[in-house]
Amino acid sequence: MVRRPVAQYGGTGLPLERRERRQPFAEPGSAGRERKAARDVRAEVHPSATVYPGTVLGEGVKVLENAVVGKQPSLSPRSTAKREPLPPARLGDGTIVSTGAIVFAGTTVGARVILGDQSCIRERVVVGDDVVIGRGSLVENDTTIGALTRIQAEAYITAYSTLEDNVFIAPCVVTTNDNYMGRTEKRHAEMRGPTIRRGARVGGGAILCPAVEIGEEAFVGAGAVVTKDVPPRTVVVGNPARVLREVPDEELLENQ
Amino acid sequence: MVRRPVAQYGGTGLPLERRERRQPFAEPGSAGRERKAARDVRAEVHPSATVYPGTVLGEGVKVLENAVVGKQPSLSPRSTAKREPLPPARLGDGTIVSTGAIVFAGTTVGARVILGDQSCIRERVVVGDDVVIGRGSLVENDTTIGALTRIQAEAYITAYSTLEDNVFIAPCVVTTNDNYMGRTEKRHAEMRGPTIRRGARVGGGAILCPAVEIGEEAFVGAGAVVTKDVPPRTVVVGNPARVLREVPDEELLENQ
Amino acid sequence: MVRRPVAQYGGTGLPLERRERRQPFAEPGSAGRERKAARDVRAEVHPSATVYPGTVLGEGVKVLENAVVGKQPSLSPRSTAKREPLPPARLGDGTIVSTGAIVFAGTTVGARVILGDQSCIRERVVVGDDVVIGRGSLVENDTTIGALTRIQAEAYITAYSTLEDNVFIAPCVVTTNDNYMGRTEKRHAEMRGPTIRRGARVGGGAILCPAVEIGEEAFVGAGAVVTKDVPPRTVVVGNPARVLREVPDEELLENQ
Repeated sequence: MVRRPVAQYGGTGLPLERRERRQPFAEPGSAGRERKAARDVRAEVHPSATVYPGTVLGEGVKVLENAVVGKQPSLSPRSTAKREPLPPARLGDGTIVSTGAIVFAGTTVGARVILGDQSCIRERVVVGDDVVIGRGSLVENDTTIGALTRIQAEAYITAYSTLEDNVFIAPCVVTTNDNYMGRTEKRHAEMRGPTIRRGARVGGGAILCPAVEIGEEAFVGAGAVVTKDVPPRTVVVGNPARVLREVPDEELLENQ
Repeated sequence: MVRRPVAQYGGTGLPLERRERRQPFAEPGSAGRERKAARDVRAEVHPSATVYPGTVLGEGVKVLENAVVGKQPSLSPRSTAKREPLPPARLGDGTIVSTGAIVFAGTTVGARVILGDQSCIRERVVVGDDVVIGRGSLVENDTTIGALTRIQAEAYITAYSTLEDNVFIAPCVVTTNDNYMGRTEKRHAEMRGPTIRRGARVGGGAILCPAVEIGEEAFVGAGAVVTKDVPPRTVVVGNPARVLREVPDEELLENQ
Repeated sequence: MVRRPVAQYGGTGLPLERRERRQPFAEPGSAGRERKAARDVRAEVHPSATVYPGTVLGEGVKVLENAVVGKQPSLSPRSTAKREPLPPARLGDGTIVSTGAIVFAGTTVGARVILGDQSCIRERVVVGDDVVIGRGSLVENDTTIGALTRIQAEAYITAYSTLEDNVFIAPCVVTTNDNYMGRTEKRHAEMRGPTIRRGARVGGGAILCPAVEIGEEAFVGAGAVVTKDVPPRTVVVGNPARVLREVPDEELLENQ
C-alpha cells in the first residue's frame, strides 16, 4: 500500500523540525529534476509533532500540530510480559496526520489518507488508500480498513474489526467485540469485532453488537442497535434493529 | 460579536510566548489608566499553544496548553481545487480556549465563551456570547450557535446546523445532516443539519436525524432517536421518538 | 492509595525535561543499591508534557507526549467567585498518563492505573488502584472510581458519579446527572450521577439516566437506555431498558 517509502526517521522521538530530504533515486546531474524530486518527497512535520525513529513517511506526508506518529503501546504496569517493540508505522504518499492525532507503531496507512484532528489509530491496523478517519475517531488494534472507506467523526471501531472498501461509517457509530464484557475464559476465543462488507453504510450513533456482519450495500439507520447480521442491500432501523426495506437502486455504489 | 478586537497575531504559527500588549486606544499621559488598560488587554497564550498569524484575540483571552487557534483546513490530497485561505479566527473578550482545543480559521467566537478541553470548532462557525462548548465536543463547519447556548461534553454538532439562543445540548448528543450517507447527487442539495430553536433541550446521547427541527423550549429525552420535527414545548422520548407530554411551566426559560 | 509519593514537582508548568530523582530513603554508602533505587523511582515525563508545580508522581510514573497533569480548572469568565486553588494532583506508583491526556488538580489517582490517550480526568476525582480509563474517555468532577474498574474508550462519566470496584464500562457509555437539563432551582439539590455497584457491567453505547443505581453484578446490554434502577445480577436491554434474564453463574466475578 505504501509503494514508495522515501523517508525514514532516525530521530529520538522528540519534536522535529520541518525537513526537506532528497529523493534517494533522483538522477544525479539533472539539477532541475533533482529540485523537483526534492520538492515532491518533502514531508512536512510541524515542530510541535513527535515522529518516532524508523517511521516511514511517503511523499508529501503532512504531520500537523501535536500529532504523534509511531508510538509504541504502553506495557500495562501489571504486565510481566516482555513484548518485542512493534515495527515502525508507515504512512503512504500524500497522507495527512491532523492536529493532535496519534498513529501507533505496527500500523500501515495507505496513500492519500486523512487522519482527522484528535483521532487515534492503534497498533497493527491496516488502512487502505484514500480512506478518511474523522476527527476524534478511534480505530483499535488489529483492524483492517479497505480503500475509499470513510469513517466520520467520533466513531469507535473496536479491535479485530474488518471494514471492506467503500464503507461509510457515520459520526459517533459504536462497535463492540466482547459479549461477556471481560468475564469468562471463552470470551478470549470468541472476541470478534464486526465485519462490514463493501459499500455498507452505518448511520449516526448506531451500535453494532459483537461479531455482527453488515452485508454488502446494507444500510443501518441512525441510532439502530444491531444485534444480528444484516443481509446485503437491506435497510434496518430501531432497537433492536429490524428490517425496514431494500436499499434503492439510486443509492447503490455502481450508480454513483 | 467581537466588539473590540485588540490584538492581532503576526507570528509564524509556531508556539508563542505569553504576551502583553497595550490597548491601542489607551490615552497617552494617563499612566495609571494605561497600566490598567494594558492589564485588561492581556491575552495569555501558553507556550505550548499554537496561534496562527492574523488571529484576533479579544481582551483577557486565554489559550491553554497545546491548543491550536486559527488553523486552515487541510486540503484533501485528492482535491484539485485551489482554495483561498480562510480569514483569521476571531475570539471575543474573555474567551477561553482550553487545553488541546482547536479553532479553525474563518470562525468567529463571541465574548466570555468557554471552548472545553480537547474540543474542536471547524471553519466558518459563528459562536455567540457566553456559550459553553463542552470537553471533546466537535462543532462542524458552517454552523451557527446562539448566545448562552450550552453544549456539554463529547457532543457532535454536524455541519450546516443552527442552534439558537439558550439551547442546552446534553453530553454525547449526535446530530446528522445526510440521509443518503454519501450516495446520490441530490444529497448535496438536501444536506442539512438540525435547527434547534431557542431554549430547546436535547438529552444525553440523543440522536437527531438530518434536517429535523426541534421547537422552542422542546425537550428531547436521553437516548431518543428523533426522526421528525418536534413541536415547541413538547417532550419526546424513545426510538423512534414519540411525544410524551408538555414541558412543565417551572422549566420554561421565562421562569428561571 | 498513593502510598509512597516520592517526587513533587516544583516547576513552572512549562514543559519539563525527563528527570531522574533519587529515592529519598536510599541507603547512603550502598552505591549499587542506590543506583537500583534511583532507577526504581524514576518518573518519566516526556519533554512535550506539562506537569504543574506540586504534582506528586509515584515511582515509575510515566507522563507521555503532550499530556497535562495538575491543571487548575478555568474560572468561568462570568464567574465572580474567588476560588481557592485546588491541591495538587497525586498519581500512584506505576501509573501511566498517556498521550494528550489531562489530569486536573485536586484529583488522586491510585497505583498501576492507565489513563488512556486523549482521556481527561477532572478535579476532585478519586481513582482506585489498577483502574483503566480508556482512550478519549472523560471522568467529570467529584466522581469516585473503585479499584480494578475498567472504563473503555470514549465513555462519559458525569459529575457526582460513584463506580465501585470491578465495574466494567464498555466503549461510548453515556451517563447523566440532571433531569432538568439546566432549568429550575431544585435541580442543584437533585443533581446526581449514577451509582454503579461492584462488578456491574454496562454495554457499549448504553445511556444511564440521572441517579440510577446499577446493582451488583448487573448487566446492561449495548444500546440500552436505563431509566430506573437495575436490580443486582439482572440483565436489562432496550429503550427504555427492561429486564431480560439473570446473569449466568459463569459470568459472576467469583467464578473468574
